[in-house]
Amino acid sequence: MKSGGLLTTLPDRVVDAIRSAIGSGPSVLHEPTFSGNEWLYLKECLDSTFVSSVGKFVDRFEDDLARFTGVKHAVAVVNGTAALHIALKLAGVKADDEVMIPALTFVATANAVTYCGATPHLVDSEVRTLGIDADKLRDYLREHTEQRAGQCVNRATGRVIRAVIPMHTFGHPVDLDGLLAAAHDYNIAVVEDAAESLGSYYHGRHTGTFGLMGTLSFNGNKTITTGGGGAILTDDAALARHAKHLTTTAKLPHAWEYRHDEIGYNYRLPNLNAALGCAQLEQLPALLASKRKLFERYQAAFAPVVGVRMVAEPEACRSNYWLQTLLLAAGQESQRDLVLKATNAAGFMTRPAWVLMHELAHFKDCPCMDLAVAESLSRRLINLPSSAGLAPVAL
Amino acid sequence: MKSGGLLTTLPDRVVDAIRSAIGSGPSVLHEPTFSGNEWLYLKECLDSTFVSSVGKFVDRFEDDLARFTGVKHAVAVVNGTAALHIALKLAGVKADDEVMIPALTFVATANAVTYCGATPHLVDSEVRTLGIDADKLRDYLREHTEQRAGQCVNRATGRVIRAVIPMHTFGHPVDLDGLLAAAHDYNIAVVEDAAESLGSYYHGRHTGTFGLMGTLSFNGNKTITTGGGGAILTDDAALARHAKHLTTTAKLPHAWEYRHDEIGYNYRLPNLNAALGCAQLEQLPALLASKRKLFERYQAAFAPVVGVRMVAEPEACRSNYWLQTLLLAAGQESQRDLVLKATNAAGFMTRPAWVLMHELAHFKDCPCMDLAVAESLSRRLINLPSSAGLAPVAL
Repeated sequence: MKSGGLLTTLPDRVVDAIRSAIGSGPSVLHEPTFSGNEWLYLKECLDSTFVSSVGKFVDRFEDDLARFTGVKHAVAVVNGTAALHIALKLAGVKADDEVMIPALTFVATANAVTYCGATPHLVDSEVRTLGIDADKLRDYLREHTEQRAGQCVNRATGRVIRAVIPMHTFGHPVDLDGLLAAAHDYNIAVVEDAAESLGSYYHGRHTGTFGLMGTLSFNGNKTITTGGGGAILTDDAALARHAKHLTTTAKLPHAWEYRHDEIGYNYRLPNLNAALGCAQLEQLPALLASKRKLFERYQAAFAPVVGVRMVAEPEACRSNYWLQTLLLAAGQESQRDLVLKATNAAGFMTRPAWVLMHELAHFKDCPCMDLAVAESLSRRLINLPSSAGLAPVAL
Repeated sequence: MKSGGLLTTLPDRVVDAIRSAIGSGPSVLHEPTFSGNEWLYLKECLDSTFVSSVGKFVDRFEDDLARFTGVKHAVAVVNGTAALHIALKLAGVKADDEVMIPALTFVATANAVTYCGATPHLVDSEVRTLGIDADKLRDYLREHTEQRAGQCVNRATGRVIRAVIPMHTFGHPVDLDGLLAAAHDYNIAVVEDAAESLGSYYHGRHTGTFGLMGTLSFNGNKTITTGGGGAILTDDAALARHAKHLTTTAKLPHAWEYRHDEIGYNYRLPNLNAALGCAQLEQLPALLASKRKLFERYQAAFAPVVGVRMVAEPEACRSNYWLQTLLLAAGQESQRDLVLKATNAAGFMTRPAWVLMHELAHFKDCPCMDLAVAESLSRRLINLPSSAGLAPVAL
C-alpha cells in the first residue's frame, strides 16, 4: 500500500486506492446486475407475444415505479431524453422560450430543451451538491429578469423563461427547498431531471417527485436498466394522462378508427423492456445497498490520500451513489487528465464530468450566468468504477 | 357456406369468407410469431449484460438488415418514426420547408415532418398501389411549383418542397419509377417510408433502397418485431455515418471525454431489442411465405363474394402482404362500418385505413392537391387478420 505516501504521484495513489477498494480489476465504469427475475419475465413476455407497446409489464412497471418513488403516476417511455422532452412540452415550453438548466449536465438535458424549439439558459452549480446553486439562481433572476403578465422574462433577450430543470448529478439531490422557492417566486415551472437519481431522497422524499413533473432514465449505465427506457413522474392525473397520450401518437381510443388529435410521439416503452424493468426494480433495494457499501469502501480507501476526496451525499439527503465520484482539491486541476490516464491504463474505467454545455460549439451562445463553480468542478471531478456488482449485497 | 349467396348481407358474406380462410377465430389483426432463436439470443444478451446501446446484436442486426435488403448500410434505431425523423434531417429538411407525403398513411409519416419544423404537403394515391400517384404528382408539381436556384418552390406558399416520402401501403410497393423520375426532375429528395414493406420488392429490388434513404419499422404489429425498433437504409457511407452519429447523441469518439458536436438524439436501438430482431430476421423468409399463403387463402375465399376484392401486389412487384386488405367496390362505401362491426363482433379483428391526414384537425390546413382517390380508398379499405401464424409455413 502506497496510498498517502509522499514519494508516489497522485495518479499512482488514486490507482492504489481504487485497487484497495475494489480489487485488481479490470472494471468498467458501470455495468448492470441481473440476478433476479430478469430472464423469467423476459421469457414470459416472449411467450405471451406481447413484446411491444401494449402489455402487462408496461402497466406493472409504471405501478411499481409509482409505488417505489411515492408518486401518484408514472408513465414509461423509451428513454430519459424522451421523458424530458414530453415533460417540458407539458410544462408549456414552446418555441422561443428559455429553459434554465445546469451547465454541468449530460447533453440530453440541453437537447430536450431544443426539441421544444426553446433555448437552454445555463446555471451555475454549488460544490456541496454538484447541482444548481439555488441562491445564485435567485440572485440572478432578481437582477436579470422581470415579471410580465405573470411570466418571467429575460430582460436581455426578451424571451420567457418557462421552466428550470434541476438535475441530481451522479445521484446527489440538489437543494430542492431553495430551488422550488426561487422557481415559485419567479413563476418558473420545475421539471426535475432525476435520470441519475432513482433511489435518491431529499429530506426523506424521493427525487423527481418535487417539481410539476420529474423524469427517470433506465439506460444501460443506470442503477437499474431496461436496455433503453425512461419515465415521467407526476402527482397530477391530467398531466399523466396527457403524457401517456402524447407518447402513444396521440391516438384517440376507438375499437378500430385511427384518429389522432394533436402531434404525438412514438415514445412508449416496449413491453419487452418493461419486463426487464420489473425484474430490475425488485432488485433495486439490494443494488442501492451495494452502491452505498461501495461508496464506504472508496471513502475509506481515499481517506488517507491527500489532494482528493470522495463526493458524499448532501446533508439530510440520501444518495443512490449511482456514480462514485472523486473530487480533486482546488489547485490539483492539472492532475485530472493524468489520473484519467493512469486509472484507465490500470484497467479501471474512469471519466471526467461531461464537457460543460457552454463549451460545446452548438451551445456556446446560449444565455448563461457566471459559471465559475461549474467550471471549477468540471476540471476536478472524476467518476470511478461504480457497478453494484463490485460490492455485492444480498437482502 | 353462404358466400356469394344473394339472401345474405355483404357483412355476413365477409364474415363467412374470413372464417373459410382462417377458421373460426378469434383472431387479432396482427401478432408476431416467435419460433426460432428468439429465446436463445435474448438469454445470450442478458448473460453478456450488454442490453443497452452497445452490443454485438446491434451491429449484427444492422449487417443482417443490410444483407437482406441489399443495401450498403443499415442504422438501427428505436422505431420507424425516429428513423424517418433522422432521414428527413439528413435529406436537408429544415424549418419552414414542405415535405410531400401521401394523405393515406399512418400519422408517423406526417409527425416526422413536423419534428423538423416542416409542413406536410399531401398527395393523392392511386388505386393500383394504394400509394402516391406519380403521374398526378408530376402534373401537380408542373402546375404549382417553380424552380428557384435549383430548389422546388411551392408557388402558393413560397416554401421549398425539400423531400417526398413515398410510403409502401400495407406492404405494396408504390410506382417507384414514376416517382423517382418526377422527384428527380423537380429537385426533390426521396426518403422512402418502408415501415410496412420489409420483404417487398419493386422490379426485383427491395423497397426502401431506391431513394436517398429508406426507413423500416419493427413495431410489434410489423412482419418482424424488436418490441419497438426501426432502421435507416442507405447506400451512402457518409449519410450512414451521420445517421449513426445523430442517433447516438452526436458524441465524438474519445476514451473518456463527453463532447458532442451538434444537437443529437437518443435514438439508438438497445442491444436487447436487436437480439430479438436478429432471431426474427432469421425467420423472415418463412414469415413471408406464410403471409403469401394467407393471401392466397383469402383470395380464394373472397373470389365468389360480389362487391369486394382482395388488394393484390402491383404488377412486377412482390408484396410482403403485411396487412391483408379488402377493397369494397365503388358504391359499397356505406357497407364499410357494417362490415367492421360484423367482423369484430364475430371475433375477427379488422380495421379501416387510417383517417386521412387532412381529416385530422391539426393537419387540416396543410397544403394538398385534390385527394379524391385517397378519399375514396379510405372509405373502402378494410384490413383483415394478417398474422403469419394463421397460415404457418416451415421452410
